[in-house]
Amino acid sequence: MLRALMRAKGWDAVVVTGSDPHCSEYPAERWKQVEWLSGFTGEAGDLVVTLDHAGLWTDTRYFIQAEQQLAGTGIALHKMRVPEQVPIPQWLHEQFGDEGLIAVDGLSMGAGFAQALPGTVISVPDLLGRLWEDRPGVPQTPVYTADPGESRSAKLAWLRQFLQEQGCEGILLTALDEIAWTLNVRASDIEYNPLVISYLLVTREEASWYVLKERVEDPQTEATFSILKSDGIRLLSYEDIYYLPSEFQGRLFVDAETLNFHLYNNLVAAGIPLEEGTSPVQLRKAVKNEHEIAGMREAHLRDGLAMERFLYWLDRSVAAGREITEWDAAVKLGQLRADQNGYLGDSFATISAYGPGAALPHYITPHRYAPVIRDSGFYLCDSGGQYTCGTTDITRTVPMGSCTALEREDYTLVLKGHIDLAMAVFPEGTPGCRLDVLARAPLWQSKRNFGHGTGHGVGWLLGVHEGPQDIRQNLNPTPLMPGMITSDEPGIYREGRHGVRHENLLLCVPAGETEFGRWLAFEPLTLCHFDTEPIELGLLDRSEIRWLNDYNEHVYRTLSPLLPPEISAWLRERTLPV
Amino acid sequence: MLRALMRAKGWDAVVVTGSDPHCSEYPAERWKQVEWLSGFTGEAGDLVVTLDHAGLWTDTRYFIQAEQQLAGTGIALHKMRVPEQVPIPQWLHEQFGDEGLIAVDGLSMGAGFAQALPGTVISVPDLLGRLWEDRPGVPQTPVYTADPGESRSAKLAWLRQFLQEQGCEGILLTALDEIAWTLNVRASDIEYNPLVISYLLVTREEASWYVLKERVEDPQTEATFSILKSDGIRLLSYEDIYYLPSEFQGRLFVDAETLNFHLYNNLVAAGIPLEEGTSPVQLRKAVKNEHEIAGMREAHLRDGLAMERFLYWLDRSVAAGREITEWDAAVKLGQLRADQNGYLGDSFATISAYGPGAALPHYITPHRYAPVIRDSGFYLCDSGGQYTCGTTDITRTVPMGSCTALEREDYTLVLKGHIDLAMAVFPEGTPGCRLDVLARAPLWQSKRNFGHGTGHGVGWLLGVHEGPQDIRQNLNPTPLMPGMITSDEPGIYREGRHGVRHENLLLCVPAGETEFGRWLAFEPLTLCHFDTEPIELGLLDRSEIRWLNDYNEHVYRTLSPLLPPEISAWLRERTLPV
Repeated sequence: MLRALMRAKGWDAVVVTGSDPHCSEYPAERWKQVEWLSGFTGEAGDLVVTLDHAGLWTDTRYFIQAEQQLAGTGIALHKMRVPEQVPIPQWLHEQFGDEGLIAVDGLSMGAGFAQALPGTVISVPDLLGRLWEDRPGVPQTPVYTADPGESRSAKLAWLRQFLQEQGCEGILLTALDEIAWTLNVRASDIEYNPLVISYLLVTREEASWYVLKERVEDPQTEATFSILKSDGIRLLSYEDIYYLPSEFQGRLFVDAETLNFHLYNNLVAAGIPLEEGTSPVQLRKAVKNEHEIAGMREAHLRDGLAMERFLYWLDRSVAAGREITEWDAAVKLGQLRADQNGYLGDSFATISAYGPGAALPHYITPHRYAPVIRDSGFYLCDSGGQYTCGTTDITRTVPMGSCTALEREDYTLVLKGHIDLAMAVFPEGTPGCRLDVLARAPLWQSKRNFGHGTGHGVGWLLGVHEGPQDIRQNLNPTPLMPGMITSDEPGIYREGRHGVRHENLLLCVPAGETEFGRWLAFEPLTLCHFDTEPIELGLLDRSEIRWLNDYNEHVYRTLSPLLPPEISAWLRERTLPV
Repeated sequence: MLRALMRAKGWDAVVVTGSDPHCSEYPAERWKQVEWLSGFTGEAGDLVVTLDHAGLWTDTRYFIQAEQQLAGTGIALHKMRVPEQVPIPQWLHEQFGDEGLIAVDGLSMGAGFAQALPGTVISVPDLLGRLWEDRPGVPQTPVYTADPGESRSAKLAWLRQFLQEQGCEGILLTALDEIAWTLNVRASDIEYNPLVISYLLVTREEASWYVLKERVEDPQTEATFSILKSDGIRLLSYEDIYYLPSEFQGRLFVDAETLNFHLYNNLVAAGIPLEEGTSPVQLRKAVKNEHEIAGMREAHLRDGLAMERFLYWLDRSVAAGREITEWDAAVKLGQLRADQNGYLGDSFATISAYGPGAALPHYITPHRYAPVIRDSGFYLCDSGGQYTCGTTDITRTVPMGSCTALEREDYTLVLKGHIDLAMAVFPEGTPGCRLDVLARAPLWQSKRNFGHGTGHGVGWLLGVHEGPQDIRQNLNPTPLMPGMITSDEPGIYREGRHGVRHENLLLCVPAGETEFGRWLAFEPLTLCHFDTEPIELGLLDRSEIRWLNDYNEHVYRTLSPLLPPEISAWLRERTLPV
């Protein structure tokens, strides 16, 4: 069908990305066009269809999954993040030179991505909509306000200060987490991500929020909209954004990384002078204020209680010979989180993986026929919650019984890397990429490694992945700053055998000044003990053992008064110093 | 005088850099125009003169020196590598906007540097020559051949392969070390750097070397020139390079980082299509072949013998109460190196520093009134030799008697950092900037740091600083590769008190393959013991102590058979395991 359309229109190629009009990392169902067209469900994948070829571009994380899901579709796998990679622009150039006529759905593609394509790129809004009969609509979940300790008026005033410095009349915010942060609003438009699908234009005088008006049928949304209106925010329809190019006057600041190609084209065509750059909200949002930090601490206390109850239940159930599957465990953990105050939902799909399943860093726990958790080897659980006071993300790997020597070594070396990063002291201005090796060196010494980043930023009641900072192999120059929250999650994955990952969230904090400058360090927010049973003590040095004992003791002292006596006693045993 | 010229010509500003026509890091006397004009002798400094301002731009390393040397000149110090820095292009823009008429000596300025300047930039070749009466001429020292185990014909064939891949007719090599590498020629045109001031054009058919013809009065040079001619190299006069723009036909590859602005302008004006990029020689030269590696090992053996003789002499002399100054020590070390086979000269000016002098990372040992080396605290010596078989660079910090607790701690932590980097195992593709923290983390833990890079590339019988790899805070993406030689030289500097630096050269070597990929590691080339007396053992872990004992034992076993019995016995004592 798509090729018939291509022939009719004279297009040489159609490029389809798994992106929404806001360049979200996790799009809502309506924009899962790659999945709809190819069946591939990985989080990173782009499709190219020509008259005689169809290919899916994805990276190392998804090769196995893509090979399985593309089998029989006639769609070829194009591997990225490998030395011989041929990215889409280069591949298209090899096919068509600069002569190709490339059609894209400009709504579901970032302007930056589209601009890198060779040949003539035409934007056909809703390109697949013509073929996709039962395509889901734009989500519209209830909208509520969040309290991050800074008013939307203060944030708008700060943005207007930015506009003045930049000599711009307005800034168009297109990234959903930046809009939610600025307006202190939340919804559930995207699974696990408390976001409202919308656009926000802030000018020196006004703030206009382009959001689906149909939502007002819901009383919570109506109340929220009233509050915003009383704060002077203009509410416009989501689709009204397309009038913006003809109505706006003056210089407009946009971030081409999150602005879709269609809207970008319209702005350019309307002759609006664009100031392109990284949105200032990105960095400001990453640096949490005191209120947000206090909320994150509270969220991690609640999350820790749920985690310890879960680990206790799992330990006892498996020891008692009950047949628990990975899925059962994930459901149980979800229930225990839901029991906590202010729980809104999970912050991403729980990875509940036993044995070989844990060897896939992005394992998806199957609902049906999930593997049973046996009484040996490792169970790995990577999960998190959204609470009204903050967001969590934690991974624990726990021994279900006896472990092999290799399992114990892997467990200990990953923990050593985790601890070495957590203990880091570093000068102001240090980007995370310079610290990444601290979590890896203990693995590298015995020629082990892991293929994912060590740490990602985490939002306050926002996405569990956020920039601009990270701790990974890529040379991202953004310095770590006090108030930033970043994960610390090294791992080891041995296909068909086992996987280990240990993850806490770390708050960056000031650590004083010496004649050599000003210093920063990390403080773990996560509150859940690390199991000491599989540790090969000889692989840890004194300072690492001290950190571990101190951390486990801190977890015990903080959580035990809030746990039932039998779980508290169990946790005491589990947190005795090694 | 300069301002009179400026007024006569209508120039708003003159920008003077301390660069030669080949953008050399260390220029010959003829091109020390910043020093001539300002009196400032630091290795990094640029001058801007306007009708009412004169300023010197330099970085953190030279602030103290610049303040002293500029005192009374009326030249203001503009600080770089500080947060509030205003680089020259920005400063000029603030003065003149885009309207300024900026004069530069295009011969002594890289094309890249000049292009970044705002306003109208005019190149006035030899601008200062009009005012500088006794300006030294272009150096012309005897030219000889080197034997790096790969013929110049093979290198030219490789370059022609590159030309074919790039679709270019020729490549113009302007960097002196790249020319010396390609032609296997050396001279002493620049102090410490065995280079020949020249240009090299390699086309698909020919190779033309633009070099001062007057040299042939020297028999060694004449012989060298004969060999080159018999290898089919055309020899042209150095100044003939200015005919190149009118004679060359076809696409020309140039590296704007080392091409001077004047020649660049002439090429552009002549309508020659330029392919700009990083010269392929840079990377190829950094990856040493087997012959070069064997030569470097031999050079380090000889250098180690000189160093141990020197340290023995210093130890005994000071213990015997003889009055040895920093200068005396440097002279003695030079003599001991000169006694070694194949010694050609030092690879840079020896830093011989006792006590507070060592707190300046780029200390210049004074000839007259040099401080006397006393029998307490640290003596630091950073030095190196050029041998026919290779180049060395070594720093040792040695206790001259009792040390304070802080001195011992600093000594040990710097050594710990040195060892941690030397012991690193890392995956193929890792850039040095990702390993830099290994040498710093032991210092950072107690909030100490050093302001220079941890490691620089070292040439084979070429410059003691070479790219493209390094190990430092800047995010240089060049991966470390087997065959590359890089220094490992962390330090601590406490103004007015003491300084510590420990430096070996490390050869990058393959370290096998596992299911997690291919691995690399380092092998120290330097052969000279680390003094164990000031070590606080409690600050080192078992693996670091093992590395140190193994290294010292290796030094002893390798050198002792070649040392006189009394020095060998002294070294035995110094290298006993801790």
